[in-house]
Amino acid sequence: MRDSFHHRLDVLVLQLARMCDLTAVAMSRATDSLATGDARLAEGVVADDVIVNQTRTRIEQDAQTLLALQSPVARDLRVIVTVLRSAEHVERMGDLAHHVALAVLRRHPDPVLPAPLRSRFQLMGSIAVRMAGTTGKVVRERDPVLVRTLDAADAEMNELHRSLFQVIGHRWAFGIPAAVDASLLSRYYERFADHAVAVAARTAFIETGTPALI
Amino acid sequence: MRDSFHHRLDVLVLQLARMCDLTAVAMSRATDSLATGDARLAEGVVADDVIVNQTRTRIEQDAQTLLALQSPVARDLRVIVTVLRSAEHVERMGDLAHHVALAVLRRHPDPVLPAPLRSRFQLMGSIAVRMAGTTGKVVRERDPVLVRTLDAADAEMNELHRSLFQVIGHRWAFGIPAAVDASLLSRYYERFADHAVAVAARTAFIETGTPALI
Repeated sequence: MRDSFHHRLDVLVLQLARMCDLTAVAMSRATDSLATGDARLAEGVVADDVIVNQTRTRIEQDAQTLLALQSPVARDLRVIVTVLRSAEHVERMGDLAHHVALAVLRRHPDPVLPAPLRSRFQLMGSIAVRMAGTTGKVVRERDPVLVRTLDAADAEMNELHRSLFQVIGHRWAFGIPAAVDASLLSRYYERFADHAVAVAARTAFIETGTPALI
Repeated sequence: MRDSFHHRLDVLVLQLARMCDLTAVAMSRATDSLATGDARLAEGVVADDVIVNQTRTRIEQDAQTLLALQSPVARDLRVIVTVLRSAEHVERMGDLAHHVALAVLRRHPDPVLPAPLRSRFQLMGSIAVRMAGTTGKVVRERDPVLVRTLDAADAEMNELHRSLFQVIGHRWAFGIPAAVDASLLSRYYERFADHAVAVAARTAFIETGTPALI
């Protein structure tokens, strides 16, 4: 049986994984509200962001308590430091989903995005949601193969972000506010993916001991 | 006299402060290149970003070595964890200066910003540079009064970012690419300020032991 200290470490890791799952749900709902203009869905994302923030607070407090009281070494120390450094990245993922929802509410009842951009953002959303779910799985299972699938998804996201500016640059008929909104929203999705990669790469470091500098 | 361990801690903190200074220089040059269209200045910012990144790598390696070898406790532990968690924020500040310089190079020889926006971005730049310098000072001296001056500067930055969208929304005569560039650039300055605040708030935690959740 695991002793009390190692049980608390396990709980810490599971809390972080759970936090990834919460941001996947938040980004899924935020993207749906962006596609449909559903303000109640967007309001739910805004309200639930508090839960992600509270989870981060609890994780950081627990990690700091374990660090201060137990003087952990080697792998145990790496687990705590990694969780401590990852929680804020995951909270940031939640913030970015929140930003998407706020954009929906700011323009409501008008849609934020013109119709030709909607499928692009649904694709970015589905990649982001899948990445957050994968990162949660990496945190739980620390499977290096899964970490590599995230790199491919991140590259796809970067390409979608980059190519948006070609779409906006040529024959754009939807006005400046829509162009600005689309640019910033695209950036939110792209940054969400970066944070998912950073957390997964860090978690891999728990096993290897090689620092991930992402 | 300080023992070898505490000397290494002092060096770690000074490296972090030095990294803040590097990002202040980078953002100052990036902003000048944005105002003047000086491509060589922008190229210098891009080239020097490597130094910031290398400093982060060295800081994180040193911090992890100290954590693993010395089993530090209490304040010493807080110093190491804080430095470890701050270095990536400062690296991100460097990345954001780098993003500004890349925008200049992408449009060169055309200016990125239309003339009426230049003074706004010079103001954002000067606030950002001052904030990075202040954060470096907080890291060195851990003065809580300085931390509070950062909050005021951050509020000013947020207001400048927010009000840009009013400027772009009404009677904008400079086309869509300029509106998109200005929006993203404004976001870079605003995020730069957020990271400066986060690092300073963290550093304050070294003395108080109260976690900063920024």
